[in-house]
Formats: sequence, C-alpha cells, structure tokens
Amino acid sequence: MSDLLETVRGLSKKTDSKILMVVLDGVGGLPMGVNGETELATAKTPNLDALAAGSQLGLVELVGAGITPGSGPGHLSLFGYDPLKFVVGRGALSAVGIGVKLNAGDVAVRGNFATLGEGRVVQDRRAGRPSDEKNAEIVAKLRAAIPEIDGTPVEIYTESEHRFVVVFRAAGGEVLGAQISDVDPQATGVVPMTAAAHDAASEKTAGLVNAFVTRAEQALAGETQVNGVLFRGYSDVPHFPSFADVYQLRSACIASYPMYKGLASLVGMDVLPVEGHEDALDGKVAALKENWDAYDFFYFHVKKTDSTGEDGDFAAKVKKIELFDALLPELLALNPDVLAIVGDHSTPSKLASHSWHPVPLLIRSEYGRKDAAQRYTEEEAGRGSLGLRRGTDLMPLLMANALKLNKYGA
Amino acid sequence: MSDLLETVRGLSKKTDSKILMVVLDGVGGLPMGVNGETELATAKTPNLDALAAGSQLGLVELVGAGITPGSGPGHLSLFGYDPLKFVVGRGALSAVGIGVKLNAGDVAVRGNFATLGEGRVVQDRRAGRPSDEKNAEIVAKLRAAIPEIDGTPVEIYTESEHRFVVVFRAAGGEVLGAQISDVDPQATGVVPMTAAAHDAASEKTAGLVNAFVTRAEQALAGETQVNGVLFRGYSDVPHFPSFADVYQLRSACIASYPMYKGLASLVGMDVLPVEGHEDALDGKVAALKENWDAYDFFYFHVKKTDSTGEDGDFAAKVKKIELFDALLPELLALNPDVLAIVGDHSTPSKLASHSWHPVPLLIRSEYGRKDAAQRYTEEEAGRGSLGLRRGTDLMPLLMANALKLNKYGA
Repeated sequence: MSDLLETVRGLSKKTDSKILMVVLDGVGGLPMGVNGETELATAKTPNLDALAAGSQLGLVELVGAGITPGSGPGHLSLFGYDPLKFVVGRGALSAVGIGVKLNAGDVAVRGNFATLGEGRVVQDRRAGRPSDEKNAEIVAKLRAAIPEIDGTPVEIYTESEHRFVVVFRAAGGEVLGAQISDVDPQATGVVPMTAAAHDAASEKTAGLVNAFVTRAEQALAGETQVNGVLFRGYSDVPHFPSFADVYQLRSACIASYPMYKGLASLVGMDVLPVEGHEDALDGKVAALKENWDAYDFFYFHVKKTDSTGEDGDFAAKVKKIELFDALLPELLALNPDVLAIVGDHSTPSKLASHSWHPVPLLIRSEYGRKDAAQRYTEEEAGRGSLGLRRGTDLMPLLMANALKLNKYGA
Repeated sequence: MSDLLETVRGLSKKTDSKILMVVLDGVGGLPMGVNGETELATAKTPNLDALAAGSQLGLVELVGAGITPGSGPGHLSLFGYDPLKFVVGRGALSAVGIGVKLNAGDVAVRGNFATLGEGRVVQDRRAGRPSDEKNAEIVAKLRAAIPEIDGTPVEIYTESEHRFVVVFRAAGGEVLGAQISDVDPQATGVVPMTAAAHDAASEKTAGLVNAFVTRAEQALAGETQVNGVLFRGYSDVPHFPSFADVYQLRSACIASYPMYKGLASLVGMDVLPVEGHEDALDGKVAALKENWDAYDFFYFHVKKTDSTGEDGDFAAKVKKIELFDALLPELLALNPDVLAIVGDHSTPSKLASHSWHPVPLLIRSEYGRKDAAQRYTEEEAGRGSLGLRRGTDLMPLLMANALKLNKYGA
C-alpha cells in the first residue's frame, strides 16, 4: 500500500459528513474550438461557473508526468490507490462490473467486436458501435459456438455497444496466467495480432485466446458489420484494501457502464442500481437522492464526456459538459459537505483518445481558501489554490475537508 | 530504476516524430540587475519571447527542494534518471567524455588545477583558468612525474582550462573503492584537505589520491600560477539502462565540453562531432542540421550561460543568453515536433555558483494547453501551465508530446 494511503488508513474516522465525488470521464481537453479554447472553456456552464467562483481549484495528474491513464488506473488514482502499485486488468474490472464472480486461477478478458474486411484487415475497431441489443444477439451466437475450448469452460458476457467479456475458467487447482500480448492492434488497416504468452504460466491462456478468435470469426462469418473480435486487457483476480477499511466510509457507486461499477466494487463500494439507458443522468441523480441518507461517500460517474472526446467530436463533448451543468443544481441541492468534480484522465477531441494532460479538479467545502480561479476549465484550474497534484492526493484532501481525518502525530 | 522511468520504458514506442532538448547550462538566475531583474528577464530575447508566447512553461527542480545540483545529477534528471538513485561521479563523466574507457575496479577522479600560496593556502581554485594549451603542458609534466604510485598505474588527461582527470587503474581482479572525501576545500584562504576513505575498499584509493597531491605539488613547484591540484568527484564505473532501451530513441548529443559528452555517452547517446572552439554554437547548429534526419532525439548543450554565472558576471551572462536567442530561429527552422528549452540547474550571477532554484522550462508542441506565461523567465515560467515539477518529469512529458508513449492500463 502506498505511504499516503497507509497513513490515511491510520487517521480515518467515521463522522456524519457526506462526500460527493463527481467524475466527468475524460473531461480535460486541448485548445481546438473556434476561439482556440478547450471543450470546457467553450461550454456554456453557468452553474459550474458559479460553483467554481466559490470553490478551490487545481489540476491532477493521475498516474505521472506524461503518462496517459487508462480508465482503470485513472480511477484507482482518484480513489487513492497508486496505480503504479495497484495494477488491475480491464478484463477483471469488466467481469466484476457485470456481476461475474472470478475465482483464483481464472482469467477475464476484455473484448471489442470489430469489423473485418478482405484478408481479415481491421476496418472498424468498434464494429460501428452496435446497439446493446445487437451486442446481446452476437454474444448469444458466440455462446452457442464456443461453450468450451479443449476442455476449458468459456463464459461470454455482453457489456455494452461493442464491448464484451470472456472468462476462461480454470480447472480445480489450475492457474491460468494473464501475461499475454494484445490481439487488438489499436489501429485500422492491419490484421489482428496473435496473442503471445509473456511467461510459461500464460501459454495455455494465449492458446485459448487465439482459438477463441478463430472460432468467433467462423461463427460470425454471416455478419456484415460485427464479424470479428479484438482482445486486450487480460487479468487474473486482484486484491485491494477496501474503501471501508481505509477510509471508514459507507461508500456507493452510481455509474452505468460495467467497468466503472466493477472498479468501485473491487474497492468495496456498494454499486447502486441506476434506471435508464447509456449514461442515464436522470437515473443517476434519482439513485443519488434515494440513497443520500444511507452512505457517507458517493462516486458519481458521467461517461459521455469521454466517449464524445474519443470520437473526436468537439461540439458533442461541449454539449455533454453543458448537460452535466444543467443537472448540477440537483446535486448542489443535496448540500454535500464536500463536493469534488474531477476527471479520471483527459480525452481531448483533438487527439480523439485519452491523453496525459492533467485534469481540472474542483473542491467545494466550508474549509477552502480563497482562490483566483473563476471557472472549471483547464486554464483557470492552473491558477487555483490546490496546485498541480497527483491523483492520489484527492481522497486525503476530501477526507480532510470532510473533517474525517485525525491529526498525524501528537 | 524509478517507477516512472520503468513505466515509461514499458510504454515507449518508435515513431517518426523528433524531439529537440536544448539545455542552457545554469540558465536560472536571481534578481540582481539595474531593475532588480534576473539575467533572463534582463536579456533582450525577441525570438525566445515569441516562442514562449505560444509554448507551455513551467519550472523544474532537478534533484529536490533546496538541493543544488551538480552538472551530472542535473543532466541525469533531465534525461529521466532520478539522480538520487543513479549516482555517478564527475570523474567517470569526464573520463568517458574524453574517450577514456573505464574498466571494472578502476577509479576516475576529477581534478582542478589551483594556485597555492604561502603555506599551501588556496589562492585560486581554478588557477586563473589557464588556457587549454597551458593545461596540456602541465598534464605532460605530471605524466612524466607520476606514471604510477606504489605499483598502481596512473593516467592523467587534460580536459579544458583548469580541469583534468586522473584514472587509477586497478590491477587484475582488484577493486579500488571510490568512497573518499574531497581534497578541494571549495574555498580560498584555506589549505587543501586530506582525502579520507569512507569505507575499507576505498582506503587504498585515498592513499593514492593524497600521494598524487604531494607529488604533483613537487612536480609543479617551479610554476607560479598552476602549482597545485584539487580533487572532488571520485567515481567507479556506473551502469545505466540506455536511452535506446528506455525510450526507443535514436539519440544524439551535441555538446563541446567533455563532461556533457561523457554523460550523454553513459546513457547511450551518440556523441556527434562539433567543429569549433569552446562553446562553438555555430558548429553545434551545423552538427544539428547535418544529422537531423538520422536521429529522433537531440540533446543540444549551451555551456556559457553557466560559466558566466559562475564568474558572477551578470552582464556577460545576459549577453550569452542573447547569443542563444539569435541562433534560435535556426533551431526553429528545423521544425522539431517537440522542442524543450531548460537548464540543468540555476547559476545566479549573484551567487557566482550553482544554486537550488528551480529552472525555467519551455515546451513547444502541437499538443500544449494555453498558458499565461509570455516570456522564458523565472517569474513568467512560474505562471506557466506545466507547474513546478521534478526534472525527471521532463522526458515523459517530451515523449508524450511527441506521441511516443502508449496508454498506461486499460
């Protein structure tokens, strides 16, 4: 455990104060708009602006200088777990997020449906983002075609859009290694890669993955758009000190997408049910209100700020930020003792991918200092009183502002 | 290896983008001029100003808060190697820089020629900065007088001005320790110190050093100015993970002074030949242009900004900064994908020595955020979007801006 996390664990105490951490996925951007402004600076956000004027702002770097965080490491950092020490594969996150119990020795793998053209060349790494219904239909086909491979049981689960999860179940006592290379080439115009084992314990798993790819393409040969699978993010079963143990918090996750629910569940949060499709912001707000009295800490996740950035759609990302701004008054009406707004990484539309740029952080509490920053934007946050910080600083700051940490030393 | 360096090693990829890192040695200063400005703020630098207005700025601390870096640790930090973990003596740097191969067990020592007065009192720690010719003449005298000490072969090499290097060659299988105290008192008006061993393995080496001091003073007794030697920076043979291995870069060093070439060579850079004497800025620019296509990364060193600061000559340091400004357009014309301008430490004329103050950093790339800083000065850099950072953050930031790092985790 990192030193700061261990220290916080020793100082945490239960109190009645409530912390609300809003994660706007991938919210940080780069100058690109008509005025050379970022998505956040371009968005019309009267509610966020008013909030920012009375809050403390700063910038957080989730993993380290220059390092582009995946969503897993980005969130672990926000939750206080140094992502260079706590390494968890996306497969395990996704599996846990859809309620699949993993046992020691199993391996969970994250898959994307893809569109393959002539000669297996990848044409679309997300198969045109199929509907969840189409996804479920394809998963059903694969389940029928690949119930097992050479005696190893294979479980296939739908996640959302182009995403699915495969679990290879180890036989009693067997341990399937997870050290294998990606099938996903992370590019179009090339063929999928062949998975290779990085250690002896993973050789069987690599063979299972490659056999799965072949049999899936055979099973999907009649499909025009969803006719291939790409894998990356293999993982065995990770172990975390729990949120309740470290922070003494009754904590709840309000998220729609499986990976985020999976991560929250790994660190011991209760995952609350959310009504509605996709980002389901109204359903999330409803879940927050309904459960307000039952928890001390809420992780509230907004996904579409990231998805639009990944699509390189500047205007759409601006719009998603404005949608969040519109619901902000409902969150403020709950009057959390400490409110944080932050991202798990930047996703500039200019790059159409995650990036290494620090993410703006806002903290509102009764115990904040005066602050020159007037808006929740990258540029203003750089002028804020919280400075440029590591993501793992966030939870200790929130705990402190909630008066939930004892003094260190006499 | 530090976690960040190890992480970067796992994420680096080869691309066509080019990185140019300009190190203005000792460029940071302190207010001292007629208007209470630093050397950088006083200098007329229209090209740097225009560049800064469109770049990201920040401040870097090379070793740690309050720590004044030597040139070795300062450069190691810029190259991404934590100087608290990677310790290399100046002797080894200088030896490698002049093409001397060190073998396991050998010790290399950095020496200064000094002027000693009555009672061996140090009058000038640099012996009036003798010419390189005078240096070579003195080295020849010493070589004749001290070919070996008690059976240990002694090699003496000229470096430049007052600087020379001694290599004590270990006999087969023997290991000479390098944990010994300085002879250089780093002050005038006092006598040189006697070297003492910090561990048993270094006792023989301390004896060799002290014997060398005595025999050198005897051999130089007829000299009026160059009549003593001072030692600091003893080192055995260091080991580094190479630049090519960590960053996947074809990297080149463009520098004139041996120590900088030695350091670059230790981390695996090709050291390019530079035409001309001393700082040879024109020769360096020519070498850069000629080799532009052959490398992905260039370390371009400018020395005189430091030397003038060490001399306490504010006006001369201002002038050297302006000389660099004049050649900047030639560097920009090469259109590097990522350009960094930074120092390896501060050398304020006010202190006439290296100092602990953070050094201004400028990064120009297509993927930078807006930035309030308008000039490359200490004060403006403090307002920059890059914040105050450790020196070891620089390489990951440059790699990221050059789009040479994969995402960390899923």
